[in-house]
Amino acid sequence: MQVNSEAHSGRPRVVVIGGGFGGVNVTRQLAKADVDITIVDRTNHHLFQPLLYQVATGIMPEGLIAPALRRVVRGQANTKVVLGEVTGLDLETHQVAVVAPNGATMALPYDTLVVAAGATHAYFGRDEWAAYAPGMKTLEDARHLRNQILSAFELAELTTDPEERAKDLTFVVIGAGPTGVEVVGQIAELAHRVLPPDYRDIDTSKARILLVEAAPAVLGPFDKKLQRYTQDRLERMGVEVRCNTMAVAMDDDSITVKGSEGEERIPARTKVWAAGVQASPLAGLLATATGAETDRAGRISVEPDCTLPGHPEVFAIGDMVSLNGLPGVAQPAIQEGKYVGKVIRARLDGDTSVAPFKYFDKGSMATIGRTHAVAHSGGMRFTGLPAYAMWAFIHVLYLIGWGNRLGTLYTWGRSLWFTKNRAHRIITRDQAYAEMRREQRAGRQDSTADSRVSAVPD
Amino acid sequence: MQVNSEAHSGRPRVVVIGGGFGGVNVTRQLAKADVDITIVDRTNHHLFQPLLYQVATGIMPEGLIAPALRRVVRGQANTKVVLGEVTGLDLETHQVAVVAPNGATMALPYDTLVVAAGATHAYFGRDEWAAYAPGMKTLEDARHLRNQILSAFELAELTTDPEERAKDLTFVVIGAGPTGVEVVGQIAELAHRVLPPDYRDIDTSKARILLVEAAPAVLGPFDKKLQRYTQDRLERMGVEVRCNTMAVAMDDDSITVKGSEGEERIPARTKVWAAGVQASPLAGLLATATGAETDRAGRISVEPDCTLPGHPEVFAIGDMVSLNGLPGVAQPAIQEGKYVGKVIRARLDGDTSVAPFKYFDKGSMATIGRTHAVAHSGGMRFTGLPAYAMWAFIHVLYLIGWGNRLGTLYTWGRSLWFTKNRAHRIITRDQAYAEMRREQRAGRQDSTADSRVSAVPD
Repeated sequence: MQVNSEAHSGRPRVVVIGGGFGGVNVTRQLAKADVDITIVDRTNHHLFQPLLYQVATGIMPEGLIAPALRRVVRGQANTKVVLGEVTGLDLETHQVAVVAPNGATMALPYDTLVVAAGATHAYFGRDEWAAYAPGMKTLEDARHLRNQILSAFELAELTTDPEERAKDLTFVVIGAGPTGVEVVGQIAELAHRVLPPDYRDIDTSKARILLVEAAPAVLGPFDKKLQRYTQDRLERMGVEVRCNTMAVAMDDDSITVKGSEGEERIPARTKVWAAGVQASPLAGLLATATGAETDRAGRISVEPDCTLPGHPEVFAIGDMVSLNGLPGVAQPAIQEGKYVGKVIRARLDGDTSVAPFKYFDKGSMATIGRTHAVAHSGGMRFTGLPAYAMWAFIHVLYLIGWGNRLGTLYTWGRSLWFTKNRAHRIITRDQAYAEMRREQRAGRQDSTADSRVSAVPD
Repeated sequence: MQVNSEAHSGRPRVVVIGGGFGGVNVTRQLAKADVDITIVDRTNHHLFQPLLYQVATGIMPEGLIAPALRRVVRGQANTKVVLGEVTGLDLETHQVAVVAPNGATMALPYDTLVVAAGATHAYFGRDEWAAYAPGMKTLEDARHLRNQILSAFELAELTTDPEERAKDLTFVVIGAGPTGVEVVGQIAELAHRVLPPDYRDIDTSKARILLVEAAPAVLGPFDKKLQRYTQDRLERMGVEVRCNTMAVAMDDDSITVKGSEGEERIPARTKVWAAGVQASPLAGLLATATGAETDRAGRISVEPDCTLPGHPEVFAIGDMVSLNGLPGVAQPAIQEGKYVGKVIRARLDGDTSVAPFKYFDKGSMATIGRTHAVAHSGGMRFTGLPAYAMWAFIHVLYLIGWGNRLGTLYTWGRSLWFTKNRAHRIITRDQAYAEMRREQRAGRQDSTADSRVSAVPD
């Protein structure tokens, strides 16, 4: 294992784990600071997660929401990017263990450590559901989900069995937070508006699309009026919204849900998981090392200044942290990142008395299909097209780089408004037939070997 | 196995195998014909292969060169699209056997069959090279190659071993046809122009980039003046061009080439295969069934009207066919597709005397890096920026749909001209660590298990 490869400059070393909203914002705050920063991520890009559902539903190409992390911090001569996975943290000797994609290991020594490793989707102890109801946290997740959704329509077109076809054309989204609402809305747009003219044997607009939520209402953190508006809009778009309803079982062909009227098994090929998240395992490592508490989702409790108990040199921020009940969305991660950057800068100036982190609630928003959204901000509520325009403006603004902003506007104008098409409806061969291999494992395919027509030699 | 699921209209049935240039052009010619067309492809998109190298080098998103096949033929009520893989052809009973992604099999009966199944890359009997030198025929190939190329720079940045670093920063493209020239040019652009400001420990502009060609000159089918211009441009861009040189061996870490000065082993992580193609296995099936000949690349000989000997109802076109020595590029496939469409229409009108297929040579072109190209057309030769402008104009024109055309112009303006960046530089986590798993199979990684720093419990 190599330790801190290059000659050490003698400047304080800041290691940032994670290139998401938290990590990038810490790093950018320190752009001109007299430190050596190393930012470590398992991918080479900064993923703009709030638009990931648009990759999963064929609207956006991957690149526009995933600029290369190196490019994002290119202007900062004090910052290095490491493509690697963190496998251990040693808070005593101040080292981070990293394994590179070629299997080589490194130890990155730090004076200050910022852990911003995020969260992944979680299945409340039912890990086997991951195979049936994929979630959406990475570009690969989005590719996989896009393949599942698009392939369902293809398979429905290919079969003549009405039961099989009904199963293929049933889509169930589990979890009605902003992500669930946004995904289910775009599945409805696909089925009802985009795809109908492309199919011959099926009417895609007859697809059955369900949104299942354990809580009594959709969009938990929003106020009652916006919740009602959202449910009403979704229902008018043809989505069956089932609140007070939980998933209790699933397999390749169905999902069983339990509501006030008992259990129901719904034949459905495509299930999308938007219900639970689980903090990065690094939260658990930090908890073990410092005695800090973790909550049910594995998120670690931090001090009011985002440091860990007894370790003022270690910060944790973003989705992996539980702090004042803040939700796992972009704004807390961004604000915590900026705050921690300022704390580190202040310390460099000898000032260790920075006030605790304070979250400024800019509001929340979610899109509902192509033209509607809900938003609340500073006591004001917005719905419909005005909320959609706000949503679009803010999301374009927060993208990194003018090239991505303009590209996104072009893509939205094209896909959502003008052509009634999705430009990125990709099923690759390996993806399509990965599905087949999965089916074969499930033992449900016809026996192909003996029923094939062979070429007849002359 | 289900046979011809839906009720048969009684109209002549045309089955088209393959949604590439050949298949799509046959189908479009028959848009208003009184036939029932079924077009079968293993993916859901029509791939614009001439720009695939731009996906592999991070310039273009996938969607712009891969519109959904259903969308391409949406306006034709007489056409169905089947996502499936052809597993057999029965020329006696006139049926095509197809396996769908869910494992179900179908037999598609035809009155007229058009086989346009294309080609894949081939390794001249050295199939084991596929693992070391990926080729580029599908979107998945392009994703894989992009990951290899981008990961090489990441690994070079991570290592401190000069030999390892030199190996990581050596790129060898095998084959100097248009694809090889275009790929090597864009690798040079990446290394010399795009990436340098993004790295801290390596100078990407010192990357060693080789183009290896067995023939005496690059761009075989072009004339000598354009060949010399191309080689000169490439050399000025820092590419080592080695003609009269063959690959004789390769492994994960190197390639051995043999030229006039004997054999040389070149340490190189990244090898790109642009040398050989092999016709679809369906060409072999057709040859066995009809007695038609195949050439060294497995391409089948067809009659002057693109039919198979003794089977006037079966056409074969495009890259899987050998006809008058036409090259395996887009134009012959497009023109053959249109021709066959016209033949089928004429036959419907009772006219079976259509003249043989005649190829109209519109010329050839290839880009060299970002600003240069070579082109010849109708006895005229073009080089440099004028040739590049011609190339760009023609390729945008041939894309399907205004949305893709405008999106491509935007992407080129942005990536190649204004921002010195590539918008689609994606390495996903699974891709990065697939590389690691490959290394581990090769037994070359450090032992990670015992050298990891572990979290220290309090």
